[in-house]
Amino acid sequence: MDGVIADTETQFINWYELDYGVKVYPHEILGREENEMFPDKEAARKFAFTPGFFRTLPVMPGAVEAVQTLMENFDVYIVSAAMEFPQSLPEKLEWLQENFPFIGWRNIIFCGDKSVINTDFMIDDHIKNLDYFKGKPIMFHAFHNVNHNHHHRVNNWKEAVAFLETHL
Amino acid sequence: MDGVIADTETQFINWYELDYGVKVYPHEILGREENEMFPDKEAARKFAFTPGFFRTLPVMPGAVEAVQTLMENFDVYIVSAAMEFPQSLPEKLEWLQENFPFIGWRNIIFCGDKSVINTDFMIDDHIKNLDYFKGKPIMFHAFHNVNHNHHHRVNNWKEAVAFLETHL
Repeated sequence: MDGVIADTETQFINWYELDYGVKVYPHEILGREENEMFPDKEAARKFAFTPGFFRTLPVMPGAVEAVQTLMENFDVYIVSAAMEFPQSLPEKLEWLQENFPFIGWRNIIFCGDKSVINTDFMIDDHIKNLDYFKGKPIMFHAFHNVNHNHHHRVNNWKEAVAFLETHL
Repeated sequence: MDGVIADTETQFINWYELDYGVKVYPHEILGREENEMFPDKEAARKFAFTPGFFRTLPVMPGAVEAVQTLMENFDVYIVSAAMEFPQSLPEKLEWLQENFPFIGWRNIIFCGDKSVINTDFMIDDHIKNLDYFKGKPIMFHAFHNVNHNHHHRVNNWKEAVAFLETHL
């Protein structure tokens, strides 16, 4: 969800500017971990625990159309490692209902880690989720994964759909 | 979670008596589906959407001790098909933090259906979850499953622990 269908990077950068008055640019954080993206190392974590953060995330460009296209040929599940942030659970559900109303409740999973999720493919931005996945991992481009190249990388939703459709 | 570590049957029966003034006894509902357990067929579903229902569920007898025992030899995940009832998500998380504080957030999963959950064992009261499970299903006794016998049945947590410990 975060970093794949929800644009957490843009939200983090906007919130940092609003809260700290410092504009951080995407090219400045390439290759950094999420807890090192800002001068104040605690900021990102603080934002993730702030009510409203997850409810107001921008949709990742192309995500809505891509998921709709994939649903023609795949059973699509939305899996979010959300349990660390309890206040995010109802926010994430409302966000999905607003932005992805065609995803039914049966296909939504909120978990702690993703190690027990068993699907054929997983599109994720985090190495920690992809490394232990038993199906085919697909790494969605994110600032924090640009220096990791041991999974198949897709740079955007157009590439993700194209890759998956070669596996039909 | 419901019907396994949380005693939903007792809660349903108590709430029905309080709301409708009619006492239903456990032996009267043996073999009935959940939507047929009460004279008013809508009651159980109405309760499940009522704030407070999931937050105040009694703990299933023996569940706390059993989960603690199992955690000595197993990675225990709490998986709840909770997504149909959005108001239950924060309630279920608070309930777990109160009653099972030794279960960390990494090991909690709230989902729609359980078809993508990949563990070695699943203890569940619902045939719909057990029938499609790829590991070893363990059917926890419940009023609505007494006429189903195609999964290994455990009648209580003592039997569940004993069965799992033969698989170490």
